[in-house]
Parts: sequence; structure tokens; C-alpha cells
Amino acid sequence: MTEQIPEPQESQFKRQLRIIIFGTDTPAGRWFDIGLIISIIVSVMLVLLDTVQSVNSRYGTLIHVLEWCFTLLFSLEYGLRLYCSANKRQYALSFYGLVDLLSILPSYLAILLPGTNLALVVRVLRLFRIFRVLKLLRYLSEGNLLLRAMMQSSRKVFIFFFSVSLIIMVLAAIMYLVEGPASGFSSIPKSIYWTIVTITTVGYGDITPKTPLGQAIAAFTMLLGYSIIAIPTGILTAEISQEMGHRRDLRRCDNCLKTGHEASAQYCNQCGSELPQEI
Amino acid sequence: MTEQIPEPQESQFKRQLRIIIFGTDTPAGRWFDIGLIISIIVSVMLVLLDTVQSVNSRYGTLIHVLEWCFTLLFSLEYGLRLYCSANKRQYALSFYGLVDLLSILPSYLAILLPGTNLALVVRVLRLFRIFRVLKLLRYLSEGNLLLRAMMQSSRKVFIFFFSVSLIIMVLAAIMYLVEGPASGFSSIPKSIYWTIVTITTVGYGDITPKTPLGQAIAAFTMLLGYSIIAIPTGILTAEISQEMGHRRDLRRCDNCLKTGHEASAQYCNQCGSELPQEI
Amino acid sequence: MTEQIPEPQESQFKRQLRIIIFGTDTPAGRWFDIGLIISIIVSVMLVLLDTVQSVNSRYGTLIHVLEWCFTLLFSLEYGLRLYCSANKRQYALSFYGLVDLLSILPSYLAILLPGTNLALVVRVLRLFRIFRVLKLLRYLSEGNLLLRAMMQSSRKVFIFFFSVSLIIMVLAAIMYLVEGPASGFSSIPKSIYWTIVTITTVGYGDITPKTPLGQAIAAFTMLLGYSIIAIPTGILTAEISQEMGHRRDLRRCDNCLKTGHEASAQYCNQCGSELPQEI
Amino acid sequence: MTEQIPEPQESQFKRQLRIIIFGTDTPAGRWFDIGLIISIIVSVMLVLLDTVQSVNSRYGTLIHVLEWCFTLLFSLEYGLRLYCSANKRQYALSFYGLVDLLSILPSYLAILLPGTNLALVVRVLRLFRIFRVLKLLRYLSEGNLLLRAMMQSSRKVFIFFFSVSLIIMVLAAIMYLVEGPASGFSSIPKSIYWTIVTITTVGYGDITPKTPLGQAIAAFTMLLGYSIIAIPTGILTAEISQEMGHRRDLRRCDNCLKTGHEASAQYCNQCGSELPQEI
Repeated sequence: MTEQIPEPQESQFKRQLRIIIFGTDTPAGRWFDIGLIISIIVSVMLVLLDTVQSVNSRYGTLIHVLEWCFTLLFSLEYGLRLYCSANKRQYALSFYGLVDLLSILPSYLAILLPGTNLALVVRVLRLFRIFRVLKLLRYLSEGNLLLRAMMQSSRKVFIFFFSVSLIIMVLAAIMYLVEGPASGFSSIPKSIYWTIVTITTVGYGDITPKTPLGQAIAAFTMLLGYSIIAIPTGILTAEISQEMGHRRDLRRCDNCLKTGHEASAQYCNQCGSELPQEI
Repeated sequence: MTEQIPEPQESQFKRQLRIIIFGTDTPAGRWFDIGLIISIIVSVMLVLLDTVQSVNSRYGTLIHVLEWCFTLLFSLEYGLRLYCSANKRQYALSFYGLVDLLSILPSYLAILLPGTNLALVVRVLRLFRIFRVLKLLRYLSEGNLLLRAMMQSSRKVFIFFFSVSLIIMVLAAIMYLVEGPASGFSSIPKSIYWTIVTITTVGYGDITPKTPLGQAIAAFTMLLGYSIIAIPTGILTAEISQEMGHRRDLRRCDNCLKTGHEASAQYCNQCGSELPQEI
Repeated sequence: MTEQIPEPQESQFKRQLRIIIFGTDTPAGRWFDIGLIISIIVSVMLVLLDTVQSVNSRYGTLIHVLEWCFTLLFSLEYGLRLYCSANKRQYALSFYGLVDLLSILPSYLAILLPGTNLALVVRVLRLFRIFRVLKLLRYLSEGNLLLRAMMQSSRKVFIFFFSVSLIIMVLAAIMYLVEGPASGFSSIPKSIYWTIVTITTVGYGDITPKTPLGQAIAAFTMLLGYSIIAIPTGILTAEISQEMGHRRDLRRCDNCLKTGHEASAQYCNQCGSELPQEI
Repeated sequence: MTEQIPEPQESQFKRQLRIIIFGTDTPAGRWFDIGLIISIIVSVMLVLLDTVQSVNSRYGTLIHVLEWCFTLLFSLEYGLRLYCSANKRQYALSFYGLVDLLSILPSYLAILLPGTNLALVVRVLRLFRIFRVLKLLRYLSEGNLLLRAMMQSSRKVFIFFFSVSLIIMVLAAIMYLVEGPASGFSSIPKSIYWTIVTITTVGYGDITPKTPLGQAIAAFTMLLGYSIIAIPTGILTAEISQEMGHRRDLRRCDNCLKTGHEASAQYCNQCGSELPQEI
């Protein structure tokens, strides 16, 4: 695909294409993106529906035809992206480049390796197409504040989860001894599963304590899980508050240099001049 | 209802009626509203009780008679509202006008279209009467702070839910492959249902993982759901704190211009003069 | 009990007794309170254990004897309180006076009205004795901050719960129509019970949706319940932060008048002089 | 082990060993710690896997051999620690000294007391080895902020839990009377177990209310548990925010004395000089 053609002439078309495919500022680029998002969502829906027995037996053929249409469409898109990108290798090895490749590869692999036992493996690979939705993340820049707050609090949250996992293991060992295999606590790993089900307040009820002592320990586990959730919530809330305050301070009136404007403010509330866009 | 009668004479009675029905400042208007709220709650209670088998078989006739009383009452009210509103069309097409109409229409439709299958559908429409209670919100302006905080944080919350739904889909696909139809994970949509049940810590227990690997992934899903709830909580808390601080700043002592008074403060704590009502 | 005895002589003993029984400042008063708290907890434990079949059949007689000991003890205490209180009528009609009476009355009623059916009702009344433990709160003034924060936020929380209950009713009606009696949604009240079980993320699993549409609505209900919990949390957190900041401002260095000291600070961090106790 | 050998000569080797075993600053000390952590985790994993029936029957002998290797390794480590510590008695009686001893004792006890019934108890003691991992916390000073915030809020949280446990007991008594043994509420302690399962939103579903009144009280219990979680969360969030603000104020630019720098800041944003490390 790296053919030797006179560059300046080709470049014109390539540049136009690049602006449409990679850019989001022109109307054409915007329409391309909207079309792509719809295609991704529809193709993922097809993968989901294909696993439903009743749908598969009735519309199986239709779904497979549509699957191939989308595979060809995404192949074409991948080819065009590779063709018009300034640095082909950089794109191919980038995160989104690999996601683009992973979203078309499984369908082709299904033809190359059509064994009866392989059907399941292929189905797995086909499911990687779901990752295609990740492409959507490209369009949302608001997530940065949340990510920064999470980064800042990651060390505190790690300590919290480390302490919780120690508590879980000790409680699981105790419950294994108290309840034993008769109540479904057949091993410590299974007991850990039960403890996590309980401490996170999920509570399936597939394994439940039967003895009074076991129920007392279970009640303690629940109250613990119910109250310690306050800790990561407190950490994150404090960090997000700080990030939001910090972001406000970054937005400064160009005229009177006042900072700390509200997120929704359009004009400086001190001198009345227009404010720069929110960062 | 748009009869051609001499206006100035009629207007006197109409205006009085409008003040009672639409207004909330006069004692008569207040009593009208309280009576209306009680009628709405009682009529909704009747709809609920009517679906209970034992109640229906014993008091079925009584309930139906009362239903018709309320229907006639609400019809009369709708007629009066239409009659005394300054702009009849505007009222009929307003949100509350449509809700008022929807709360009486189903009962009349049940006579006009007395099909056995339609009875059930009509019963649903009848429930729209519940929305009439929403009018209560008209009297409570406190909800604005909550709404503003939610609006402000909507973009961040949207990104959070978008990311969570991506994680849900990927986890559902993995669980479908790991557990399969034998454990109740009969399709990816069903697997998505299980993942949501687990990640929100609801945990019905109608579908539970049976294999060790499935239980390990389930445990991870639970811990994830248990901890990420901290994110929307953190976002909203930060926004509500900001809104409350902002609201405090809006309340200013008329005498010394001091802002930032407590919500419950009645007098300025700097100069002692009375403060304006909370906004 | 309001005997006519020479007052100044009696008063001396009465005053002493009043200080011990009602006061908490003297060592004797402290010991009396601790003894009382232990008695209350033990007597409540006995009521709880008495309902356990295996314990009741073995230690039934012992428990009943102990019950009567505690009843006599609490009767004596009630008598003494009545005797030594300055205003007997005021005490007898006060909240704690009524709780004290309610904690001994059921045992006596069980003799006067020894019906087989009444035994159970009497047992309930006996549990009011638990409320006596509430007196503990008298010694803990810290609860005020929490109560103030809850009072301040009560209007916002009311609006939240009002909106949630409307959503619950609408969702319950929809689920009743979608799932119907076949899946356990036998009436709208039962459907409301299911919706509350789901929206609060409890998730018993005694009633679960069976149809794909029902499961989709259930998934939506879960996600809703999972995210709206952030609203009351945000409201309360903002109020508690404000209350804590306010409390800090109330604590002022007597020397340099600086406010805003930390809760754990013992000395003013500006002038070094000792700070007053936390309020 | 307290042999009488010429001190200055021995001291040299001892000091070196002490730096490696107890210290964390030299590369050798770091490697020793990492090796120890891995050993602890692997040995705990073996204890967990040993309780799984299928693993035990196949790899039982291998696991027991490895167990003994780790026991000897930890014994050697304990001996070295005892040998090279400056104050042997202080180490042996310290918290970590006792944990070190507890992590090797059970294996030896299993030989000395080889009863069939004792085997299970010994297995529990073996799990105390998990606590050795707690040493990890020594390297993470971040936990202090969380601990301080929890200490500060402990009195408020205690009052919250005291009030909640009273509510739980009253609700449990009411449910015992309303539902009775027929629905699984066989005693008040069991009813307390159900109430905790419900109020913490765990919701196993092993005991569920059957009567309409019981379901109504259950619904109330759920809504209560769903909303009161906001209280401890609010308390902790307010405390953590305060602690974080306080910590920021402690970090001061050595050049211009400005405080309140961000946690991630490396240079003073007022004078540009390097900031001291985060405390």
C-alpha cells in the first residue's frame, strides 16, 4: 500500500481524506463520524442478538449477511485510514489502530479456520468486535477530570482495597471453619467468593450461612461492607471537589485577571468582559 | 365552551374561579389544592387495590363506583379549568393540561372500546393520573438546587455511565463464554442482565456462576460495582456543595452587603439587620 | 407516694438520691448509670433469647425468673425516680418517664390478662424496654451535629423521596403489565414491593422478571437505583461539611480571637494560648 | 541464642544483617523484603488451595512438601530476626514479632499434637500467616490520612451505628410478630439476621416476608437502609476533605513560605522554587 506515486498530486486527495476520516471539525468529517458510530452500535447489536437462540434460528442467515457487510465496511475504513495516515506504521501500532484491526480480524479468521471445534474459539474472537465501541471514547474529552481525580486518589484507594482483601481472606477462613462444606462453604476460595458476595452487599443467596454463629459473622460482614463503602466514596469526593476547584482557578478573566468563575459563567462577574471557554 | 356572552360581567366570576383553581395564595385556593391532592392519592390507591385478587373479588363493585365518582370529579375539574383559563388553547396543550386530560380519558375509553384485551391497556393509561400528583412539585421550589446540580454534572455522569456500559458489555461477553447456557447464561443479552444485576449489587441469585473461573470474574465484577459507585456520588456531592455555596453567596444583607450567610440565618451576623428570605 | 412529711429534713436525702439517679457528674451517679445500662442490655438479651426454641425449652424457667428480677429492679428504679423527682407529674409525663413505665408495664399486664392470645402481644410491649437504652444518647452530645445536618437537608431529602416514590409506582405498574401474575407480579402492590427490592439494590430474588422485556426494565430500574443513591448522599455530605465548618467557626481563641481551629487542636496556632473545649 | 561472644567483631556482621532484614533503604534490604512478600503470598495461596477437594486429592503431597519448605524458611527468618535484633526481648514481644511466631507455630504444633480433630484448628492458626502481609503497610505511609480521618469521625460513626442497631432490634421484633416462624422468622435473633441482611441491602433471599404487612415493613426497612448509608458517607467525606486540606497547608514552600500547594505539585506556583516532598 506504500506505492511510489508522485507525491504532491496524490497528497491533495490524501489530505482531504485525512481531514474527513481523522478530523472532526468539517461537516464531512462530522457526518463520517456519526455514520461510523451508528455502524459500530448496529454491528455490536448484531453480535449480541446472534447469541439469542430464538433470533438465531429465525434470522441467522440475515444476521450473517449483515455481519459480512459490516466486516467489509470496516475493512474498507481500516484500509482508508492506513492509506491516508501520514505515518502508516504509527497508526497501525497505535491503540486505536489495533482496536480497528481487532474489530475486523475475527470474521476473516472464521473462514481460514472453519473447524467444528474451532467454532467456539472463533465466536470468542468475534466478540472482540465489542471493543470497537471503545472507538467512541475518542469523542469524549470530559473524562479527563474524572481520570485525574482517580489518579490522584489511586494510592489511597489501593491501600483501602489491600486492607479490605486481607479482611475478606480472614473472614473467609473463619466462615469455612464455622459453616463448612455442609452449608456450601466447600473450600476457602469458595468461602472468599461468598465473602465478596456479602461484603459488596450483592447477596445472591446461592450460599448462605445456616448456623447461628455463621449468621452472626455474616451479619458482621454485611455491616462492615455497608459502612466501609464510605471510605472510597469519601476519598474520591474529596479529590473531585479539589479538581473542580482547581479547574475553576485555571479559568482566568483576560481583562481583570479574576479567577474562580463558575463553570457555567459566560462573563466575568467583576468586570463584565467575556470569559474564555471552560478548559 | 367558548360561548359569546358579555365579557365584563362574566369576567368577575371567571377571575374569582381562576384564582381559586390555579392560584395558591388565597385560603380557598389552598383548600382546593389540598382537596385535589387527597382525591388524586385516594383514586391512585383504588387503582392499586383493584389489582389485588382478594380485594377485587370482595369490594370490586364499590371500587368501580368510587372510580367513576373520581372520574366525574376530575372531569368537572378539567371542565372548570378549561372554562376559566384566560387562554383555553394554551392550557389544553400545556404539560399539566395534557396530564389532566390523560387522567380522565382512560375511564371513558373503557366504555367506548369495551374489548376484553383493551381492559388491561386502559388500566395502564389510568395510572397516568399519578403524574397529576407531580403538580405538588409546583409548590416546592427547593427542587431547583437538586436539578441544577444534576444538570451541571450531567456530562460527567454521562461519561461515567457510558464507560460502565462498555465494561458491562465486555464482562457479559466474557461470562457468556466462561459459564455458557448450562449456568443460565443462555445468550449475551441475558448475560448483560446478569452483569447489571451483579455490578449494581442487586444480586437476585436467579442466575449465578457455577465454575470457579466464573465465580472469580463475578467477584471482580462485584468489587468493581462496589467501588465505582463512588464516582457518581463524588461528582454529585461536589456539585451540590458548590450549588449550596453559590446560593449562600446570592443572599446578601441589604444593610452591610455581607454575603455567605447560613441557610437558617434570620439576621445578618455582622450588622444585625434582618436578612431577605432564602432564595 | 406524695406523702405529707416535713420537707427540709426529707429534702436532704431526696436531693442526694436525685443527684445519683438523674445526675451523671458524681462517681455514684456514674456507677448507677453504668449498672442501669448493663441491666437494660441483659434484660433485652433475655427477651431475644427467650424466642429461640432450643434455648426456651432448656433454660425457659431460668429466663422467666431473671425476667421477674429485672422487672422488680426496674419497678424499684421507677418508684425511686418518681419519689425523688422535684416535679413528680412532669417526670411521669415526660418522654423518658413514659419509656420507664412502658418497660415494666408489660410484665405486670401478663399476670392481669393471662390469655393465650395476649401472651404474644405482651411480649411486643416488653420490647419497648429497648428504648430505655436510648437514654444513652443523653450522654452523647455529638449526635446534635448529625441531627442538625439532617434537619437542614430534610426538605431536599423529602423532594428526593417524593420523586423516587412516583418513579417506583410508575415502574411497578409497567412491570405488572409486562410480567403479570405468571412471574409473581400478582398485583400492583406486590409489584411495588418488587420495585423497592430492586431499586434499593436489595435483590431478594423471591420475585424475578422472566420475560426479556421485563428483564430490560429490571436492568434499567437497577441502574437507576444504583445511581440516584448519589443524590441523598451528596445532600447530606454537603450539609455535614457545612455544619462542621460552622462548628469550627464557633470555637474562638480567647486571646487573639482567631476562629477556624481544627477539631483536635488544643492550642491556638496563631498565639499559642490554650483553646476552649470543643463545642 | 544469647551466646557470650566478643561483641565488636560480631556486631559488624549483625549490623549488616539487621540492615538487610529490618531496613528497607539498601538494595539488599529491598530484595529481601520483596522475596519475603512473594513467599508469604505463595504460602497463603497454598493454604487456600489445600482446602479445594479436587486440588487436595491430586497435588496434596506436593502442597504439604511446599508447606514445610515455607515453614522452615520462615523459621530461619524468625531465628535471624531474633539473632540480629538489638533488643531480642523487645522484638519477640512486639506486634510483628508475635505475628512472625504465629505464622510458624501451627505447622510445628501439627506434629506435636497429631489428633484428627486438632488438624482443623491448626489449619486456622496457619492462616494467621496472612497478617504477615500487613508488614506491607509499613511501606505505605499514605494510610495515615485515612486512619486520622476515621479516628476523627469515630465518635459520630459510633452514634450512627448505635442508633441503627436500635432500629434494627425494633424492626426485628416487629417482623418476628408479623411474619412468625411460618416465613422463616423462627426467633428474634434470626429476625435480627434478616433485618441486617435487608437494611444493608445485601438481600440473600433465604428468608423473605410472605404477608402483605410484612412486605410493607420490609419495603420500609429497605428504603431506610438505602438512605441512611448517606450519613456515614457524609461524615467520612467531610473528615477526609478536611484532612486533605490540612495536609496541603502543612506543605510550605521554603522560599516564599506559600502553603496550600496541590498534592502533585513539584514546584511552588508562586516563586518557582522546588517544593519539599509530600508529607
